[in-house]
Amino acid sequence: MLKNDPLEQWDRDHFLHPSTHLAEFARGNVAHRIVSGGEGSHIVDRNGTRLLDGFAGLYCVNVGYGRREIADAIAKQARELSYYHSYVGHGTEASVTLAHMILERAPANMSKVFFGLGGSDANETNIKLIWYMNNILGRPGKKKIISRWRGYHGSGLMSGSLTGLPLFHKAFDLPLAPILHTEAPYYYRRPNADMSEEAFSAWCASELEAMIQREGPDTIAAFWAEPVLGTGGIVPPPEGYWAAIQEVLDRHDILLVADEVITGFGRLGTMFGSDHYGMKPDVITIAKGLTSAYAPLSGSVLSEKVWKVLEQGTDEMGAIGHGWTYSAHPIGAAAGVANLKLIDELGLIDNAAEVGAHLRAGMRDALGEHPNVGDIRGEGMLCAVELVSDRESKEGFDPSRKVTVNAVAHLMENGVIGRAMPHSETIGFAPPFCLTRDEADEIVAKTAAAVKAVLG
Amino acid sequence: MLKNDPLEQWDRDHFLHPSTHLAEFARGNVAHRIVSGGEGSHIVDRNGTRLLDGFAGLYCVNVGYGRREIADAIAKQARELSYYHSYVGHGTEASVTLAHMILERAPANMSKVFFGLGGSDANETNIKLIWYMNNILGRPGKKKIISRWRGYHGSGLMSGSLTGLPLFHKAFDLPLAPILHTEAPYYYRRPNADMSEEAFSAWCASELEAMIQREGPDTIAAFWAEPVLGTGGIVPPPEGYWAAIQEVLDRHDILLVADEVITGFGRLGTMFGSDHYGMKPDVITIAKGLTSAYAPLSGSVLSEKVWKVLEQGTDEMGAIGHGWTYSAHPIGAAAGVANLKLIDELGLIDNAAEVGAHLRAGMRDALGEHPNVGDIRGEGMLCAVELVSDRESKEGFDPSRKVTVNAVAHLMENGVIGRAMPHSETIGFAPPFCLTRDEADEIVAKTAAAVKAVLG
Repeated sequence: MLKNDPLEQWDRDHFLHPSTHLAEFARGNVAHRIVSGGEGSHIVDRNGTRLLDGFAGLYCVNVGYGRREIADAIAKQARELSYYHSYVGHGTEASVTLAHMILERAPANMSKVFFGLGGSDANETNIKLIWYMNNILGRPGKKKIISRWRGYHGSGLMSGSLTGLPLFHKAFDLPLAPILHTEAPYYYRRPNADMSEEAFSAWCASELEAMIQREGPDTIAAFWAEPVLGTGGIVPPPEGYWAAIQEVLDRHDILLVADEVITGFGRLGTMFGSDHYGMKPDVITIAKGLTSAYAPLSGSVLSEKVWKVLEQGTDEMGAIGHGWTYSAHPIGAAAGVANLKLIDELGLIDNAAEVGAHLRAGMRDALGEHPNVGDIRGEGMLCAVELVSDRESKEGFDPSRKVTVNAVAHLMENGVIGRAMPHSETIGFAPPFCLTRDEADEIVAKTAAAVKAVLG
Repeated sequence: MLKNDPLEQWDRDHFLHPSTHLAEFARGNVAHRIVSGGEGSHIVDRNGTRLLDGFAGLYCVNVGYGRREIADAIAKQARELSYYHSYVGHGTEASVTLAHMILERAPANMSKVFFGLGGSDANETNIKLIWYMNNILGRPGKKKIISRWRGYHGSGLMSGSLTGLPLFHKAFDLPLAPILHTEAPYYYRRPNADMSEEAFSAWCASELEAMIQREGPDTIAAFWAEPVLGTGGIVPPPEGYWAAIQEVLDRHDILLVADEVITGFGRLGTMFGSDHYGMKPDVITIAKGLTSAYAPLSGSVLSEKVWKVLEQGTDEMGAIGHGWTYSAHPIGAAAGVANLKLIDELGLIDNAAEVGAHLRAGMRDALGEHPNVGDIRGEGMLCAVELVSDRESKEGFDPSRKVTVNAVAHLMENGVIGRAMPHSETIGFAPPFCLTRDEADEIVAKTAAAVKAVLG
């Protein structure tokens, strides 16, 4: 530490960091970094280290760092009115405007927005509203939810249950009972190498159908899915997947909840992943890209079909007993309005599509033939490089070698932030939408160097 | 509406407000209000209506509105760095400093802070950590949680289950199985009018003991409680309550989680409710007062005893699989640091104690003898007026008369915001700590006028 102050000691003594080896951090054996600024695709820490952030925070600083327009909107709102609640018809100009802007951008059948804080609580809200809905519709037994192995939907008790990654379950007694997990559409890891993408999609749909039949269609309320699997390995769906899944859901009157926390507002190079893949969701979860993380805000976007039942429900039962003190927080709403305007004005979604494609093409040129690179994939401004010990067998590495973790550490030592995705030997990238071609080339060159440093 | 713009229509068409009769709001039959500014204890809406906020938003704008010091801290942070995550040892100067400041103020045995966004998610975190803890300690069957009827702990699936108010359960299939509810320490509604406060406290403890024996002490992980019941009616505990409860918990090795979302950082006229009442919590939930709601931020404050098990757990199992993208959000952390400094500098906790006592004394003078006022209670800057049809029988009113709702509406028409508490005919007040004696007198006079307008 370069600074003569107690911050590092306070950090070790008092601050419980998420997803951290707590004991090793407290003992000083896990690096700590106090981030102090950022500009475009770069962050700077207080020791002056500057890093190209190839993960946009946690897939969320979509417009990049240091956007004066959003900071000014936050500052203005903070000075005028930092907080008032949104219960019983209260709001601010920003929160009402943002609700409208979201609906302008969302798929055509969407009708209402409920505001929360982060993706986890938005998914909680969605479960509550769907259970409420089926109670109002007189089908109280239709409550189970199917999500997917490798899905990520949050880290709470029920949102963490939706998540299909053992790291978020072990020692927490998750998943809880009403949540079931079906196959991930992970084409690279398909059960049979000869399967076409379409055949694999049909197989995923048949697995879902079999689970529904086993459980009883009248017990299943909803299917929960990211358009592209995020934390589960950055895995776009194979050809025909969403059409095949949608057919099964429609046949059994099962709602589709699209978790667009990562994909919403441009990450795939288009406004929403649902429209990108022709999904027909009844509910959409939004968060990260809604404000580019400049302030916490999430949303549950509800279709007209869901809204009609909520309308009936409150007519029958009175006011709905759900809400957060910080629902539609004015600071978050002001950030959201400024963020969505900026995305439009700067054409950032088009840039995400173009430079994202350039990033993947560069990665394929640099690493496509490497004997330990099994798969390079992505969509829009997402890119993943999956490492294997053998391309034929697709086998991974002895976990004790920490191959991906070491590659990512090498990358960071050379000034680029990537992410070792959990439960796969995959280096993930989800850069800001403002990434330049030169910055993409830097990510590629340094990733190639890191892979070669670790694996030869 | 006075403004020639589409905001009201957008609000009706698109914005799903919390705790609202959704259908009536969409049809335009529930009032809407766009709040545009605030100063001290007052808010202003965009039509120019100025209201004395006797509820500080939702018990949260503790320092009052329009505090330049906090707005400036938010603006500065927004311009320097609006966001970076806090995973794996990352932080900002503000988040590390705030962790330290919280521990400086918290009860003596506290050791670590995990940051979330709101009280609901902090309670989720606490359940997860307690389950994790008992798994690490080799007692996987010790997982049930006892909270109290009339407790409020959030609105999620599990936090709403902790909540002991039917409004937050009905039609949502809550409470979920691992949560049980014991008696509320609601002395005014004690089973036997002859019971002293001490005898009633002993009875509450014996009810808790009986529930623990029924379920088996080895199945109960924690007891969850607000120092003063908040949304359940603003009910301070009777004499001897916490000592009696603590004895039962200690005897059965059951953790105490103090939900100090309302009481933390001064609401009772002292820094923490736990110290105020001599509670010995193992975990403390904080939110609202941490930032005075200027930006969303919550926390789970963990004792050294809990921390030691987390340390052991990560040594055995590696990094903990828990966290929110917006944990320790820089904007919230900056707001928290500025807020806690301001509370100290302005001596706001002392003012909360003094003016709060003045408010209750005034309310007793004005309404203590009214035939429909059953109870006037509170602590620190909290005050509740419970209405009854008959003081002897303590009976309420026909709900269709909406007595409290109408009294609160009358109050608002006369420029003062109070709250009709759910599940009781109680008018609640939780003003900003900066409330002046004149403002307290205004609340009293207008409350008396409202009660007389509705009940004679």
